[in-house]
Amino acid sequence: MADEKTTEQKTADEKKATPSRRSILGWGGAGLALGAAAAGGTTAAVMRKDDASPAASAGDAVPFLGEHQAGIATAVQDRLHFASFDVTTTDRAALVKLLQEWTAAAARMTAGHEVGEGAIGDNDELPPDDTGEALGLKPSRLTLTFGVGPGLFEKDGKDRFGLKSRRPKALIDLPAFPGDNLDAARSGGDLCVQACADDPQVAVHAIRNLARIGMGRVAIRWSQLGFGKTSSTTPDAQTPRNMLGFKDGTRNIAGTETDRLDKYVWVGQKDGPDWMVGGSYLVARRIRMHIETWDRTSLKEQEDVFGRDKAEGAPQGMQRERDEPNLKAMKDTAHVRLAHPDSNHGVTILRRGYSFTDGTDGLGRLDAGLFFIAYQKDVRDGFVPLQTQLAAKDALNEYIQHVGSAVFAVPPGVRGKDDWWGKALFA
Amino acid sequence: MADEKTTEQKTADEKKATPSRRSILGWGGAGLALGAAAAGGTTAAVMRKDDASPAASAGDAVPFLGEHQAGIATAVQDRLHFASFDVTTTDRAALVKLLQEWTAAAARMTAGHEVGEGAIGDNDELPPDDTGEALGLKPSRLTLTFGVGPGLFEKDGKDRFGLKSRRPKALIDLPAFPGDNLDAARSGGDLCVQACADDPQVAVHAIRNLARIGMGRVAIRWSQLGFGKTSSTTPDAQTPRNMLGFKDGTRNIAGTETDRLDKYVWVGQKDGPDWMVGGSYLVARRIRMHIETWDRTSLKEQEDVFGRDKAEGAPQGMQRERDEPNLKAMKDTAHVRLAHPDSNHGVTILRRGYSFTDGTDGLGRLDAGLFFIAYQKDVRDGFVPLQTQLAAKDALNEYIQHVGSAVFAVPPGVRGKDDWWGKALFA
Repeated sequence: MADEKTTEQKTADEKKATPSRRSILGWGGAGLALGAAAAGGTTAAVMRKDDASPAASAGDAVPFLGEHQAGIATAVQDRLHFASFDVTTTDRAALVKLLQEWTAAAARMTAGHEVGEGAIGDNDELPPDDTGEALGLKPSRLTLTFGVGPGLFEKDGKDRFGLKSRRPKALIDLPAFPGDNLDAARSGGDLCVQACADDPQVAVHAIRNLARIGMGRVAIRWSQLGFGKTSSTTPDAQTPRNMLGFKDGTRNIAGTETDRLDKYVWVGQKDGPDWMVGGSYLVARRIRMHIETWDRTSLKEQEDVFGRDKAEGAPQGMQRERDEPNLKAMKDTAHVRLAHPDSNHGVTILRRGYSFTDGTDGLGRLDAGLFFIAYQKDVRDGFVPLQTQLAAKDALNEYIQHVGSAVFAVPPGVRGKDDWWGKALFA
Repeated sequence: MADEKTTEQKTADEKKATPSRRSILGWGGAGLALGAAAAGGTTAAVMRKDDASPAASAGDAVPFLGEHQAGIATAVQDRLHFASFDVTTTDRAALVKLLQEWTAAAARMTAGHEVGEGAIGDNDELPPDDTGEALGLKPSRLTLTFGVGPGLFEKDGKDRFGLKSRRPKALIDLPAFPGDNLDAARSGGDLCVQACADDPQVAVHAIRNLARIGMGRVAIRWSQLGFGKTSSTTPDAQTPRNMLGFKDGTRNIAGTETDRLDKYVWVGQKDGPDWMVGGSYLVARRIRMHIETWDRTSLKEQEDVFGRDKAEGAPQGMQRERDEPNLKAMKDTAHVRLAHPDSNHGVTILRRGYSFTDGTDGLGRLDAGLFFIAYQKDVRDGFVPLQTQLAAKDALNEYIQHVGSAVFAVPPGVRGKDDWWGKALFA
């Protein structure tokens, strides 16, 4: 079924056409097509030059290859499907093969292609290479961001894959924080994939196909859908509101702020280990919000708890959302005040959280809240000191509870056709 | 804070402006504005004339007032939040008051306004009238469709609200079907609201605010988010795919097919009871799909189970999706064959289902499937005979299981400012 065109010809064709999920290009070709699509067809660059590129429109593809993984500094997409996996195989070679297969599939899916090179129907005696529910949908700015958890390096005292000595110092087991009520079934994991896209069906399709590819080698430990972003990495965009009705994260690190990304998010040469240079560390927290209680609270109390005006989103005492906050105009326990870098010796993280609503709990309350995701250069200098402060003092604690938690090392981006997720770790 | 403009002036202003969630118009004004917006600003018609109007663009408002409730024949929106409520008050007057408050709030929210007439901040000693998380978002074609379940007429042998004699014959308790594995916590309910919108945050906001308004009178029994529509009521649109990767419901009743709507969906004068004329009956089924098993099945088996080609969606033996199916070319047990009106003495329902993924079950499998919603003139002539046939013979049963079930009578549309959800029932 494959045609005889050269890769160059195919790439040229792709430049003209909207990426299609019916293409029969291999994953290398997918990568090339991606670069071209992202560059607006003016250049065939394969990799993102940096993460400062402006937000693509909702249907476009985000390049998969790059110095850093996409899905961190990338303009935040509308929807999330996050999955944490337990590795069930004990065979290092089988794990490596899985990561190679995952990488190839991720390159294809983020480009808007099906998982397999053959269109559905090449051999109807076999299961299709792709489950099919994203056929005909646009790439939808899908990004797939891969991470490794502490359990990959050591679990139950065992060095399962000979990686124990390679565990980064920054990949700590998170300490217990006051107020935590963590559900083990919603916490931890050996591997993670964060799927973000502007179309939820595209994000769900990606996780489902990675899980299918991993059958017998990994099993989903937990997964979380997010229906609405609560943070923005594009400062010109409208700051989204969380399930408490407030804007939060107004001063988030922007994808265009290369200097702040280098300072707070990307692991540098001097930070190490080598296999993590260009990577970052991800903390995920499932934060349940007691919205029924919150909704019976006076506007004044709500605004005092946050330290913001609700309607406009301005810091208390100021007029506009982006006015520099006067922390002293807020209560000592106000969320904005306590989370501000000035209250934390400059601690700054990149936030990428999503609102969730997972039906109803046994007491007739909506199971709703924030699936918090933060990226930082070192968890010990980012989430840990920040959450230590918030857990101790934040007035918001009366209305929220952390019920899930995980931490992952997110390696640098895949650089080319012979690279794969985590290759340098296994080198 | 209200200005001195007449209603006519306000309506004229609204015609020029995009509906804003910060408007301080009352709900009557909201209704008028809605009509104007939907008519493209060319007429100030308050009500939808019919449901044959072409799909509005994703950000627009759908008129709330009309002969029928919106959200049935309306072009299917991208996202769903469906909620089922238990009535907890025993006071008929309190229930009536709730329905009046809900109607006013629904009229405002579907127009893109906040729940209350006062902007957030009118009195900061009180909780805000609106929870705020949809501030700044577009109306997003939000529809809120209201229904009453069997329990409102009689529960545990009690005629709770003096409505027992008014129960429609068509509002039956669904029979048990072979293979059902229903969870009581995901089934039934005295009242329901189906929220559909192109933005999930708008749908979630609407249900959450209705639940908040109902505090002390109703409690959410269960709720379900749907992330992707699986049916279309606009035949020119691309048929969406379900979580099994197949197109289904190609021949669904279209919102433009007035004759089929009258024949199969809307309760007519001769059908009765009076309070239901212009209404319909809703069946909801939470259908879990065993996607891991399905994904290991050969393409041939998958296509035989459905009776369709997977890639194109064509009925087996035909070339194109919308080709008239040759039922005899399919296996006796094929889903399309068994669900076809020709196999069911003409039984036809309007489908409005959504795909769901609610994280992971205890066995590491995605809790995913179809939240099936169907509308019909009489459940006894619609879902019941259809499901009786499917439950007995459908090859798909190996891969699916019905785990939740509910049935509701959906009254006709709200006709004007003095009308409210269910008014004729309580008359």
